[in-house]
Amino acid sequence: MTGITTSGEKKLVLVSGRANAELAKQVAESLGTELLPTEAYDFANGEIYVRFGESVRGCDVFVLQSHGAPINDWLMEQLLMVDALKRASAKRITVIAPFFPYARQDKKHRGREPISARLVADMYKVAGADRLILVDLHTAQIQGFFDGPVDHLVALPILADYVKSNYDHDLAVVSPDAGRIKVAEAWSASLGGAPLAFIHKTRDINRPNETKANRVVGEVEGRICILVDDMIDTGGTIVQAADACMSAGAAGVVIVATHAVLSGPAVERLQNSCATEVIVTNTLPITDDKRFAKLTELSIAPLLARAVHEVFEDGSVTSLFDV
Amino acid sequence: MTGITTSGEKKLVLVSGRANAELAKQVAESLGTELLPTEAYDFANGEIYVRFGESVRGCDVFVLQSHGAPINDWLMEQLLMVDALKRASAKRITVIAPFFPYARQDKKHRGREPISARLVADMYKVAGADRLILVDLHTAQIQGFFDGPVDHLVALPILADYVKSNYDHDLAVVSPDAGRIKVAEAWSASLGGAPLAFIHKTRDINRPNETKANRVVGEVEGRICILVDDMIDTGGTIVQAADACMSAGAAGVVIVATHAVLSGPAVERLQNSCATEVIVTNTLPITDDKRFAKLTELSIAPLLARAVHEVFEDGSVTSLFDV
Amino acid sequence: MTGITTSGEKKLVLVSGRANAELAKQVAESLGTELLPTEAYDFANGEIYVRFGESVRGCDVFVLQSHGAPINDWLMEQLLMVDALKRASAKRITVIAPFFPYARQDKKHRGREPISARLVADMYKVAGADRLILVDLHTAQIQGFFDGPVDHLVALPILADYVKSNYDHDLAVVSPDAGRIKVAEAWSASLGGAPLAFIHKTRDINRPNETKANRVVGEVEGRICILVDDMIDTGGTIVQAADACMSAGAAGVVIVATHAVLSGPAVERLQNSCATEVIVTNTLPITDDKRFAKLTELSIAPLLARAVHEVFEDGSVTSLFDV
Amino acid sequence: MTGITTSGEKKLVLVSGRANAELAKQVAESLGTELLPTEAYDFANGEIYVRFGESVRGCDVFVLQSHGAPINDWLMEQLLMVDALKRASAKRITVIAPFFPYARQDKKHRGREPISARLVADMYKVAGADRLILVDLHTAQIQGFFDGPVDHLVALPILADYVKSNYDHDLAVVSPDAGRIKVAEAWSASLGGAPLAFIHKTRDINRPNETKANRVVGEVEGRICILVDDMIDTGGTIVQAADACMSAGAAGVVIVATHAVLSGPAVERLQNSCATEVIVTNTLPITDDKRFAKLTELSIAPLLARAVHEVFEDGSVTSLFDV
Amino acid sequence: MTGITTSGEKKLVLVSGRANAELAKQVAESLGTELLPTEAYDFANGEIYVRFGESVRGCDVFVLQSHGAPINDWLMEQLLMVDALKRASAKRITVIAPFFPYARQDKKHRGREPISARLVADMYKVAGADRLILVDLHTAQIQGFFDGPVDHLVALPILADYVKSNYDHDLAVVSPDAGRIKVAEAWSASLGGAPLAFIHKTRDINRPNETKANRVVGEVEGRICILVDDMIDTGGTIVQAADACMSAGAAGVVIVATHAVLSGPAVERLQNSCATEVIVTNTLPITDDKRFAKLTELSIAPLLARAVHEVFEDGSVTSLFDV
Amino acid sequence: MTGITTSGEKKLVLVSGRANAELAKQVAESLGTELLPTEAYDFANGEIYVRFGESVRGCDVFVLQSHGAPINDWLMEQLLMVDALKRASAKRITVIAPFFPYARQDKKHRGREPISARLVADMYKVAGADRLILVDLHTAQIQGFFDGPVDHLVALPILADYVKSNYDHDLAVVSPDAGRIKVAEAWSASLGGAPLAFIHKTRDINRPNETKANRVVGEVEGRICILVDDMIDTGGTIVQAADACMSAGAAGVVIVATHAVLSGPAVERLQNSCATEVIVTNTLPITDDKRFAKLTELSIAPLLARAVHEVFEDGSVTSLFDV
Repeated sequence: MTGITTSGEKKLVLVSGRANAELAKQVAESLGTELLPTEAYDFANGEIYVRFGESVRGCDVFVLQSHGAPINDWLMEQLLMVDALKRASAKRITVIAPFFPYARQDKKHRGREPISARLVADMYKVAGADRLILVDLHTAQIQGFFDGPVDHLVALPILADYVKSNYDHDLAVVSPDAGRIKVAEAWSASLGGAPLAFIHKTRDINRPNETKANRVVGEVEGRICILVDDMIDTGGTIVQAADACMSAGAAGVVIVATHAVLSGPAVERLQNSCATEVIVTNTLPITDDKRFAKLTELSIAPLLARAVHEVFEDGSVTSLFDV
Repeated sequence: MTGITTSGEKKLVLVSGRANAELAKQVAESLGTELLPTEAYDFANGEIYVRFGESVRGCDVFVLQSHGAPINDWLMEQLLMVDALKRASAKRITVIAPFFPYARQDKKHRGREPISARLVADMYKVAGADRLILVDLHTAQIQGFFDGPVDHLVALPILADYVKSNYDHDLAVVSPDAGRIKVAEAWSASLGGAPLAFIHKTRDINRPNETKANRVVGEVEGRICILVDDMIDTGGTIVQAADACMSAGAAGVVIVATHAVLSGPAVERLQNSCATEVIVTNTLPITDDKRFAKLTELSIAPLLARAVHEVFEDGSVTSLFDV
Repeated sequence: MTGITTSGEKKLVLVSGRANAELAKQVAESLGTELLPTEAYDFANGEIYVRFGESVRGCDVFVLQSHGAPINDWLMEQLLMVDALKRASAKRITVIAPFFPYARQDKKHRGREPISARLVADMYKVAGADRLILVDLHTAQIQGFFDGPVDHLVALPILADYVKSNYDHDLAVVSPDAGRIKVAEAWSASLGGAPLAFIHKTRDINRPNETKANRVVGEVEGRICILVDDMIDTGGTIVQAADACMSAGAAGVVIVATHAVLSGPAVERLQNSCATEVIVTNTLPITDDKRFAKLTELSIAPLLARAVHEVFEDGSVTSLFDV
Repeated sequence: MTGITTSGEKKLVLVSGRANAELAKQVAESLGTELLPTEAYDFANGEIYVRFGESVRGCDVFVLQSHGAPINDWLMEQLLMVDALKRASAKRITVIAPFFPYARQDKKHRGREPISARLVADMYKVAGADRLILVDLHTAQIQGFFDGPVDHLVALPILADYVKSNYDHDLAVVSPDAGRIKVAEAWSASLGGAPLAFIHKTRDINRPNETKANRVVGEVEGRICILVDDMIDTGGTIVQAADACMSAGAAGVVIVATHAVLSGPAVERLQNSCATEVIVTNTLPITDDKRFAKLTELSIAPLLARAVHEVFEDGSVTSLFDV
Repeated sequence: MTGITTSGEKKLVLVSGRANAELAKQVAESLGTELLPTEAYDFANGEIYVRFGESVRGCDVFVLQSHGAPINDWLMEQLLMVDALKRASAKRITVIAPFFPYARQDKKHRGREPISARLVADMYKVAGADRLILVDLHTAQIQGFFDGPVDHLVALPILADYVKSNYDHDLAVVSPDAGRIKVAEAWSASLGGAPLAFIHKTRDINRPNETKANRVVGEVEGRICILVDDMIDTGGTIVQAADACMSAGAAGVVIVATHAVLSGPAVERLQNSCATEVIVTNTLPITDDKRFAKLTELSIAPLLARAVHEVFEDGSVTSLFDV
Repeated sequence: MTGITTSGEKKLVLVSGRANAELAKQVAESLGTELLPTEAYDFANGEIYVRFGESVRGCDVFVLQSHGAPINDWLMEQLLMVDALKRASAKRITVIAPFFPYARQDKKHRGREPISARLVADMYKVAGADRLILVDLHTAQIQGFFDGPVDHLVALPILADYVKSNYDHDLAVVSPDAGRIKVAEAWSASLGGAPLAFIHKTRDINRPNETKANRVVGEVEGRICILVDDMIDTGGTIVQAADACMSAGAAGVVIVATHAVLSGPAVERLQNSCATEVIVTNTLPITDDKRFAKLTELSIAPLLARAVHEVFEDGSVTSLFDV
């Protein structure tokens, strides 16, 4: 037969945006490799420039970005990286977005709104992304916004292991929102069957038209409440939930969340709250001004590295989200 | 200037699949028009044949189908209709799917599953649909699965008006599932602030690893419980919820749901249940064998007709889902 | 260079829908492997659920389905499987549809009809199929409906080998339809130059406006007629053609077809016909109620297995359709 | 409501490539308009330049091209025109290709061939065509190659009217190819039930492996044979068919075809043939060197103009292909 | 015929992002309408929220945004607006981006860079934009990055009219970059044939390897130099060019540019430069801190308004860029 | 795990159109392989037929075509080849178009023109091309017209090496067009810092409205001028530029260009010009009638072969365009 035949091989490359250098470094270390040398900077008018320092031709490239503020810049930077990889003949491009941008705008809450999370998924696609790796989506339906494989990882095992190692008092798992009680159930199972409770926050269940209040549904008296959510943004909701737990007789409150958005007054609120510890991961960068005494930061890097490894080696990522 | 200029006009045409002839007839009547003559039948091997009896060139066509069993046949019939309309030069094609097929498979519950609702949205798109009109989606995120306008209508006003006209006893609104309590809140507001409750069905909140039970959270004692859900399939969940309400001291139970799937044992279960009335709409066809004494069927046709009219006249559909 | 390099390998996986378990098993055996464990069942309202039991990440997956009645269900099941494979990171997805659904609606016979076969091809594409393997298409132009590689296999060698082994009487090859005489020519060549004939069925060639009749064009007197077609649906046409052969003095009639649709009265018609044997393949499942004394069923599995093997190994499938 | 509202109107514009100026002029006249002023010329290296002389913004534009030799140039010119119209904000672009380029390569006759007709359809789509108007496709399945509306016109009424007006002798309709006998049937019906016949040209029906011959199947003795085909390319087949008719005792032969490709030796063959008249349309330009005494050229322009008018006015084109 | 027919009409709606409220207001006034009420704000983590206050169903919507710093935010805001319009059934969506984001990254200057301007064009497309209106692109080829109509407006007439009204001294037109001399030629023609010159800035033309210098090519002695460019970013290049003009004996220097990016040290540099006036348009917002004594700001609003009007009324925009 | 696993390998295949057999042969030889046997011919009406003689299943195929006159035929032939490769299951298809067709129509120079180069890029994409390899594009922005990887090679090193080896007189690098001076700068650097000059050809810089003239800007007196351009079409511009150099006192003129279009009067003009040598590459075929005494033809084949090799082996092509 006419032609030239050689044996095939495949090559994994990890590249990172500028948003969370520490996380990128940890993932690279966990994988036993280094980040691809990458040049990235802002022009005077805010336009971003990126360029890769080595060939990515034929490579299986993973593009990590962390979507904290300024979130639109970091999203654009990652899209530019994907475009550059596509044009540089990368064989496959996997976007790693531990905190998916605009995940909360996942439907039209009212008419004439965008569905921003779908737009973000489409932008990744049009730039050239083949696959996504995400962590603890605000709603799992966002997987369906992307026309391709999505690996949806869960941080619960990392967070729960820490809690189990550090708290042996009687625990209760508390959800700050009735709509998210299924996550709390998974936590309960993971903590050996700790009782469940949740905060009914919108209004008193018997007087729906009156003023809002936070009521704990479930028994928390005498227990340390593990208050779990997917993200902490300004911290208002979760701090009120913590107060409600204490009012209901809890022995203490520990706040746990995957994504530490920590916008605006969040740090002050959390530090001053009745919670004794706030446990988060580094899916978003935690700058020094966001660190406070009660904060415990666990690394998501080993989970991401394991997912990258399995994706590259065609192993099963399903195991990574079985609790 | 070279060319021929004439004044423009626009034409609304309504076509329907075979699944729910009664509903189609009602929508046409509400609009003050007739259904486009359409030939549709099955070949001996189950393949479906469709053909329209009049020109649809340049028309603004609305294709109504009702997705009861055999659901895959009715879905395929509607897709074939859309394809035929596209190839016959319809100007705009709007799919009306009051009960969106496969809406419950809106995410991967476990690895290696399809996201069937996204596939259905993509199939409508590839066949040629420009827009969708849907009623009471299982999760609102499904809107984001379609790359185009989706009008998401709500049946609540129709159902709530009936309840208000027929029940003046003290009411409570009960959700059979903690995850759907926001719908119950809208009901409560619509019924003048009736108290809310819900069924915590998975397990006892204090003993999550023990056997399942249904517990009513909220006060229903002495009240008639309006038990609300988006659909009734086999009826198991809702009937158990009704029992739980009665055990909690309710004065009576009325079941309300938009979509009357009524599969398998549903009719028998509902008829024999402690509920005194079961109120549904005809988004799905209710055949005679599914009718029973307690069943009240309200027509969704006026709502669909109003949406079609607003879409055709470029009016605002937003008002149709403001409760 | 930065990154991790390993040697590549590739993996073939065969999955199957529920329509024709026997055929799937045979193909797997011919390939020397097993079907991927797959969960598939119907919900009460007819919606189908599928899930794969093992990882398919990075695999070259072949998805076999057999499109007998209920054909829309089996088509939908296969599409859901393709969607699940795409989202589970299969490297390449090849649909095997031995009997292509809706192949007879391959053009608009009249205005305002769909082109259903094109819609089916588009649905496979949008679900995620990269390639198709088909057998004996109703018209070869359907290959052009799919935007990607199509391997169009022919069953003729399997069928002709059987005929050659079992009939040594003087033969004639008869086409039941003037429009399909090219297939009969291939048969003639394959049978060592047996004379050709065909049925002119629409009307008497000299009185086109009078009543329909079946006239044999070509000499069949004293010969055993091998009556060949792509499919037998209700059997009406082919049985009348057999009668015409006998009227024209044939020594006997043997019916041969690739696809045994066998709808409605087909079994009774064929069994009671003047044909002495009806030879088909199992591209469609032949349930016990469709089996009758004169029926001979040859397996298409070795042909499919060989095609899968060649596709996986990048061999040439062209040889599989050179007669 | 905010905004500016005006009444809508619509405007038809006809543009033409350079291949068949006479046909374009006729169509414009039939429509009662003029061709849009258009600049088109070749650069020295064969690249084509096109530009429209007036605005087409918001117009319903019909782009006529005639695909004779040099066919690739005329195809490219039409594609460039479509691209220019798209970028100039035409509202809708309809390609008129009376002779569809590459229609004969509508499937893979052997492995590793293109499906050129599908490629042409895709090229029209990617350039920006919304719709196609075609005349007498080689196979009707080509309609399915385009993802959008296709109006498939038939020239038969134009041709048959001429024949009926000019021949009152006993006629027979003869197809030169068994595979195209359905067209001959339509002719027979159109000529008041004239007897049908066809040429079995590949080989003697009783000795398929021997040398080729042309045999007339059907009775033509004493009749004038109307020999009908979709196109005449080099004329070899049709002239041999005419000879076969005469050998079978025909009183005369008249050749009728829609598309006068007339390549290479066609003119000489036809002029020297036993046919007394050759009737064609001007779907392809007939240059002076292709004109010969026996040739009758009927204009396809009224049919095209009527189709354009119906498409623009949203009338029904279906009537244009009901014989 | 079945159906409901009404006369068509069309409606223009103008919406604007938050980047340049003044420009949006001016365009609306020029058009004689008001901006659609629009809600837009930032969440605490930088995510943007947008919603329109009135229905846009069936409207011809123009979405104006001005892409100054923070440019990625303003781009994202505009994309979200386009997505919301698409999902709210706008009939046609035209993006107005007077300064096209990332226009300078219009090719790979070196390997492994993105082509950011193409990515931006694709992002507009995927969000739902049908058309673009742009002003003075950095390179005209960017038009080809968008798959649809692009109206490329030129600000030269606005700028040149001002210059002609204010300067009657002998003028010379000077380009600061050899690569942009064609723009200067248009200026020269517009100013009645003023002599041309340009700055050869990279290196001395006779000693290309030595240190950089700015040399004026062309005669400027005793003339007032009109120094023209598409944008002023940090101002370094243009201020050096002005110095070169003065060194070459110019009587004075006036700087003219369409896009006033005015990043970093630009204001200080320009104010302290030898130029006596700096004339720009408001395609980008000029905040108070960017205003300085020598700056003259002309409004681009009338040009944009006229283009919007012509697009809506299907008039010719070509006239807007004929100088 | 279920399935069949084997080691992967990859195979390079080179195919070529008929336009430039000599170049194809050279590239194959440089690669150490042979061209895939390919059948290609024209039908009588100009339609092209192609078929590959061996399987390309799973191969990494490079499709070389040279786009001289008749350029539309050669473009169509290459597109048909790409389509055939796609349908024959080639793994990856790379188009090699050393002279990109329609590169000069890379923008709308005036309203209502096509952007032909974008159309060509889209046609390659829709036919199935994954990647492009191009040489010395007319404008580099054309890279952005293709949605995928483009390797843009430069011929300068090949041409400059020849010049350095053959000319040791004092040299000057002259650009015939002010808009292309950056290419001349690269030449100057490559020739060790030779002085730069260019022809200001449109009009006298001081009298822009008067008659056109060619003026040399820069010092060329006593030097041999290396006059560099991307292509020579009819030769008019470059020959006038050569005259201008001589008028300005040059010691001699050598013309260098990558693409030898050599249309119409080019050969005569060049042969009769004052230039002493005309150096080109064979990106376009140079037929015997285009050869003349002063012409030197250098082969581009080694550059193309090296690029193919690097692409196949996932090496870096970036090095191929670093001067």
